Amino acid sequence: RINGDRLWDSLMEMAKIGPGVRGGNNRQTLTDEDGEGRRLFQSWCEKAGLSMGVDTMGSMFFTRPGTDPDALPVYVGSHLDTQPTGGKYDGVLGVLGGLELIRTLNDLNIKTKHPIVVVNWTNEEGTRFAPAMLASGVFAGIHDQEWAYNREDAKGKKFGDELERIGWKGDEKVGARKMHALFELHIEQGPILEAERKDIGVVTHGQGLWWLQITLTGKESHTGSTPMPMRKNAGLGMARITELVHTVAMAHQPSAVGAIGHVDVYPNSRNVIPGRVVFTVDIRSPDLSTLTAMKAEIEDRAPKIAKELGLEILIEEAGHFDPVTFDDGCVTAVRNAAERLGYSHRNIVSGAGHDACWINRVAPTAMVMCPCVDGLSHNEDEDISKEWAAAGTDVLLHAVLEKAEI
Amino acid sequence: RINGDRLWDSLMEMAKIGPGVRGGNNRQTLTDEDGEGRRLFQSWCEKAGLSMGVDTMGSMFFTRPGTDPDALPVYVGSHLDTQPTGGKYDGVLGVLGGLELIRTLNDLNIKTKHPIVVVNWTNEEGTRFAPAMLASGVFAGIHDQEWAYNREDAKGKKFGDELERIGWKGDEKVGARKMHALFELHIEQGPILEAERKDIGVVTHGQGLWWLQITLTGKESHTGSTPMPMRKNAGLGMARITELVHTVAMAHQPSAVGAIGHVDVYPNSRNVIPGRVVFTVDIRSPDLSTLTAMKAEIEDRAPKIAKELGLEILIEEAGHFDPVTFDDGCVTAVRNAAERLGYSHRNIVSGAGHDACWINRVAPTAMVMCPCVDGLSHNEDEDISKEWAAAGTDVLLHAVLEKAEI
Ligand SMILES: NC(=O)NCCC(=O)O
Ligand SMILES: NC(=O)NCCC(=O)O
Repeated sequence: RINGDRLWDSLMEMAKIGPGVRGGNNRQTLTDEDGEGRRLFQSWCEKAGLSMGVDTMGSMFFTRPGTDPDALPVYVGSHLDTQPTGGKYDGVLGVLGGLELIRTLNDLNIKTKHPIVVVNWTNEEGTRFAPAMLASGVFAGIHDQEWAYNREDAKGKKFGDELERIGWKGDEKVGARKMHALFELHIEQGPILEAERKDIGVVTHGQGLWWLQITLTGKESHTGSTPMPMRKNAGLGMARITELVHTVAMAHQPSAVGAIGHVDVYPNSRNVIPGRVVFTVDIRSPDLSTLTAMKAEIEDRAPKIAKELGLEILIEEAGHFDPVTFDDGCVTAVRNAAERLGYSHRNIVSGAGHDACWINRVAPTAMVMCPCVDGLSHNEDEDISKEWAAAGTDVLLHAVLEKAEI
Repeated sequence: RINGDRLWDSLMEMAKIGPGVRGGNNRQTLTDEDGEGRRLFQSWCEKAGLSMGVDTMGSMFFTRPGTDPDALPVYVGSHLDTQPTGGKYDGVLGVLGGLELIRTLNDLNIKTKHPIVVVNWTNEEGTRFAPAMLASGVFAGIHDQEWAYNREDAKGKKFGDELERIGWKGDEKVGARKMHALFELHIEQGPILEAERKDIGVVTHGQGLWWLQITLTGKESHTGSTPMPMRKNAGLGMARITELVHTVAMAHQPSAVGAIGHVDVYPNSRNVIPGRVVFTVDIRSPDLSTLTAMKAEIEDRAPKIAKELGLEILIEEAGHFDPVTFDDGCVTAVRNAAERLGYSHRNIVSGAGHDACWINRVAPTAMVMCPCVDGLSHNEDEDISKEWAAAGTDVLLHAVLEKAEI
């Protein structure tokens, strides 16, 4: 069993970097705070005897050697970056759980045949630079690295430049590493495990996603003196597409979700009819045909809404992954671990995207989930108990050991 | 007749300060650019022999003495501040038209019985600091000066502090000046005069307005892993209230308008359901009972929309003026001037709020309007012709002369 207190202390220590305003974290990718978090994590890993590699996307890999020089490593990890008003556990638990697993093996002087590598993937959240899971996506060959370097944040800063600026552009070629298996521990970010009082979610599948960035262009004009029939109100168009996305998601219940989280209105003045709005639609489903149908409905109806209001519309794909089926062998290793340790568990579909979803394309992969209070995540009030964290990490340890072989 | 070329040159010179990105202006109130525009205007006025007074709200008054020491001054003017993506004429024409009128009287060596004062009111636009027409509102006794000083911009900077910072807090008590009459020349900001090929709008009335700042509070959570029934999506609430405002305005056609120009979404991340939105509803009507009914409908139905979505709602009044009826004598002076000069004209209701609307409460007031291309304003593409500007300023001169008496 891992050391739950030590894990918790590390979680609390990391949470001091990039504190939020309400007890959570703002440690967005490639900010100074991200750099500071990375340095703290590096110091802990080196103290645990691990050696560091950093790839050209800034993902960090810490290796504990195995006894068989020919055996491919087993990877564990997640991400240290957070939402602008994020929690202390989303991603961080998976990274520090991986470190805790190493510390436990060190304590018990357990050697494994396969090396074990703890990884922190760059820009999982996708808030500052869309899409989410950017570095793991490049690793898995989904995205081109040059394309990733040119992703811009809201201020027009480029991913590549910011990676250099914080000093974490490594020299390893992205995706060169071969993996025996990868396990990611993550909080559920949804309400199911807590409601059913299960300690562990055995993640069999992941939802698919589309991010559609929509730009509506109308005509800036005076809110008072422009007659209603002459208006080209881009804000009204956004309102109608917001309702459309909601309606489309509701029509596919219970296996669909949809919302708009990102909204920029120009010029954003009380007495100016919005001349331009840019916003991102987020639609998801565990079922590919549902996801495809939802996207088609929005792409069909949004232009009609725009046309009725005299608006121009541009729809750009800002993120996408298909529903994922995790590797049978790895999923079984997770289930076996939970069984062996006596933790209650159930199969679960991940509602969120994870680095593991991309890595699943290039290596046998599975995920372990632990509950979170009220299913709340992407919120500073995100919360878990020390016991939940420890149980998840215990299962992670045993699943890894099954694959890494003692 | 005034000198149309000289007026135009001054307009183009002023437009160089705080240039926009597309040929218009960004010279928002109490910015460094506002300070620079004020200094240029001061230098021109002093060259024309006028003496300056500045009140504690930063409004600037330039006096040309009259021949009768007991006669109250006739005021002309408008505002030099602009929208963030505003035009070169909204407000500026009224101020520089006032200056051109003085220059013309100087050229022709015409003396008037009543002094003439050219005024630049502080913060007419209300974009940076709500409400609009702030300094003229304090002048007319509508707002308290301390309240005005405490108005905050989006960055939390206070009006009073910014006024001191740019060095334009004068020492005159606001509202102490007594006026014989006030005339404001302004572009129409709507399509009527151009469509009917009229040179001059004789402004008889002004629309009333309510600005309602609405805060909806839901719950930030993950767009992927939060089931639809568990969501408290503040963005969806905003969308529905946007549609409501539109519906309410459409139900009162043709004598109502409504839109939402200002929108802030928190935390504004693609994969976070908005936990809070703040936005401002702008509704207007020339008819008080219509305006009152619209406000009541929104205040009745918006909370129901919020409740259905599990959101909390806060509705704050961020600006308000009742419909205005301008002074008969002043309106007649404007109409007489247009007649005398042979300009085509019609009565018109101002769709926008103006400093003249507040001053009308404390002094006989009227407005002169000239057309603008496509009725477009609060847009960098706002445009007028040199001839329109000259005609409006000619009428302004003659209306002022009727009241100021030669
Ligand atoms: N786990 C997580 O929140 N990932 C961010 C990508 C997503 O929006 O699903
Ligand atoms: N004229 C003008 O645009 N004034 C700003 C106040 C308003 O929104 O009507």
